[in-house]
Amino acid sequence: MEFISGGVCAAKGIKANGIHCGIRKNKTKRDLALIYSETLANAAAVYTTNLVKGAPIYVTKEHIKNGKAQAIICNSGNANTCNANGIEVAKTTTEHLGKALNIPSEDVIVASTGVIGQPLNVEPIINGLPELVSGICDNGSTAAAEAIMTTDTVLKEVAVSFNVGGKECKIGGIAKGSGMIHPNMATMLVFITTDCAISAEMLQKALSTDIKSTFNMLSIDGDTSTNDTVAVLANGLAGNKEIVCEGEDFAEFMKALNTVNVNLCRMIAADGEGATKLLECEVFGADTEENAKLVSKSVICSSLLKAAMFGADANWGRVLCAIGYSGANVDIEKIDVSFSSAKGEIIVCKDGSGVEFSEEKAKEILLENEIEILVNLNSGEFSSVAWGCDLTYDYVKINGDYRT
Amino acid sequence: MEFISGGVCAAKGIKANGIHCGIRKNKTKRDLALIYSETLANAAAVYTTNLVKGAPIYVTKEHIKNGKAQAIICNSGNANTCNANGIEVAKTTTEHLGKALNIPSEDVIVASTGVIGQPLNVEPIINGLPELVSGICDNGSTAAAEAIMTTDTVLKEVAVSFNVGGKECKIGGIAKGSGMIHPNMATMLVFITTDCAISAEMLQKALSTDIKSTFNMLSIDGDTSTNDTVAVLANGLAGNKEIVCEGEDFAEFMKALNTVNVNLCRMIAADGEGATKLLECEVFGADTEENAKLVSKSVICSSLLKAAMFGADANWGRVLCAIGYSGANVDIEKIDVSFSSAKGEIIVCKDGSGVEFSEEKAKEILLENEIEILVNLNSGEFSSVAWGCDLTYDYVKINGDYRT
Repeated sequence: MEFISGGVCAAKGIKANGIHCGIRKNKTKRDLALIYSETLANAAAVYTTNLVKGAPIYVTKEHIKNGKAQAIICNSGNANTCNANGIEVAKTTTEHLGKALNIPSEDVIVASTGVIGQPLNVEPIINGLPELVSGICDNGSTAAAEAIMTTDTVLKEVAVSFNVGGKECKIGGIAKGSGMIHPNMATMLVFITTDCAISAEMLQKALSTDIKSTFNMLSIDGDTSTNDTVAVLANGLAGNKEIVCEGEDFAEFMKALNTVNVNLCRMIAADGEGATKLLECEVFGADTEENAKLVSKSVICSSLLKAAMFGADANWGRVLCAIGYSGANVDIEKIDVSFSSAKGEIIVCKDGSGVEFSEEKAKEILLENEIEILVNLNSGEFSSVAWGCDLTYDYVKINGDYRT
Repeated sequence: MEFISGGVCAAKGIKANGIHCGIRKNKTKRDLALIYSETLANAAAVYTTNLVKGAPIYVTKEHIKNGKAQAIICNSGNANTCNANGIEVAKTTTEHLGKALNIPSEDVIVASTGVIGQPLNVEPIINGLPELVSGICDNGSTAAAEAIMTTDTVLKEVAVSFNVGGKECKIGGIAKGSGMIHPNMATMLVFITTDCAISAEMLQKALSTDIKSTFNMLSIDGDTSTNDTVAVLANGLAGNKEIVCEGEDFAEFMKALNTVNVNLCRMIAADGEGATKLLECEVFGADTEENAKLVSKSVICSSLLKAAMFGADANWGRVLCAIGYSGANVDIEKIDVSFSSAKGEIIVCKDGSGVEFSEEKAKEILLENEIEILVNLNSGEFSSVAWGCDLTYDYVKINGDYRT
């Protein structure tokens, strides 16, 4: 497996585009993205667990019920959530795009991100479709990735090539992380395409399995968005024998999908609202996978720890505290904690109690912008990784300071 | 029932004191508190659910197993948590205090708050005991309340008088909220005394029941502390017939205890780290009490909403979002939301969708320092209140900015 360029267009037969259609007032900001497969693709998706869901999610769920899709359209600037006419707007969008691409509207996946609770005007989208569709091309990943950004500060795309049964396959994706415009909420959208031939059933299985250790282990601020969606298209143009069951080929596909997802997770975490640091909590030695995950997620979600990391403060007591209330059944007196970064690693807690350590060395390690928090529970063989970011003045500023 | 002065010393036969013994470097900050009942009292307590617990909690649990206690000693500046010799230090403290007061060490409740993971030197405590004990008096509540503060900015004490079977009883308490010294974590300590005669069993029942709707509905930052303790002493000196079962007298006691606890909750929330606003989320119309509580707690814990409230931004979408991921089973399309303060009330969401409202009026309401978020689920008869505070630059500063 190796990293390649091309993002969401790396796979054969995938084109994309992103334009400014007018949902946003800022004319230099693209706000409408299209991803298109030359042939009908197998499709899978996972969605937010929030009971409050964006209207596009209902339409997308309906459209990919048959495991097929050929295009993804996504606007930024308005989440189309908590609106009386949201479903109608989402449906209308897919109908017009279907006509423009000459495909059934049922093969269109639709997504939105941005302001919640404000009606989404469908006119700019409809009027923008000719430009959007005519501009799709093999190197449109960047334009599409830009068009789904809200206040993301970094464009997020990744792709890898891998081998299935002697055929070279490609998989790539784009993502938007937690960014804000006024007034809305953090949302995550991920769109992935591959030319690997894999049945819709196995594609869904791969995605549903993988997100448990990738996107479900990612937290910016603990607020589960209403619009989170991860969707994958697999058009089979790589020519491999279609993956229809578990086995070596499926394992290869899972590895590639995982690499894409882990990289997008890390990009989203590092670009969390106001973030200055990517935090990665690795838990080892858990007695069950469940306990490993509870611990790593709890640590990454602690506001106290996140603020300490912003301040480059080796405040390991907050790691212990977060482990203690994680809900995991752990033996506190067996826990070792260390902090690690490009500048080295330092042990701060052994057997649940503090050890003497150099505060200067700890500070040097924690001043880096990628920090690993290593927790060994010394109670078994299971491990887990969770990703997050520090809590900064800018998080508060982005989310509270619009009017003051 | 009426509010009275005297705090934790309002009840008959209760004396208190607070001194600087030297745990803290700042000699003007008291760091050791004592609360003393002239007679052996019935005692009850509740503790943090964090698996990582301060050493004093183990000693206190052991000491009040028999439902009796006569004194409470508490230091600030060091949490005596995650230390190899923590239990020994806590025990030694109770032994020396027992000798100084001429009571069994088993009748002493001990608590600590402050830095975690650093050994607590018992010498300053032992050396301070003569001054601490000789200075106890009827109006020592304020000194004791000061001595348990960490970076609390406001002293927290409250007392009420109430009537049980024709006898005037008094109940009062002191609290410390979420404050910090370097490096530690938010902790809550509450000490309550009453002269009402009530059996240890009914006292524990009253406390365990009441905290479900008071201290368990309070969140500053979602981090459950290692040292949280709420302890109550009831010495019976009011002369009422001892409350030994449920009934009218118990109901009166519960009402008084609830008033004390709600007031301390509101004080702790308003003085949350960096807070500029007290947030109160009232949920009505829930189908179960459990769902009412899940919703009110989820709203009050949302970092996005807390930041929006800091910015006086009527961002009701974040309320809906937090309800959606609360885990409560609710019908989103029935939800009404309004914001309220001393400046009035404004409806922002009806039947799960936005309604037009005056942004100026909303801002005027949200610029106040006590904000109510009113949620009507329109699905039943149950209600709930939760308390919290806004998320501000100062929260980040207090918790992250020690070294930069």
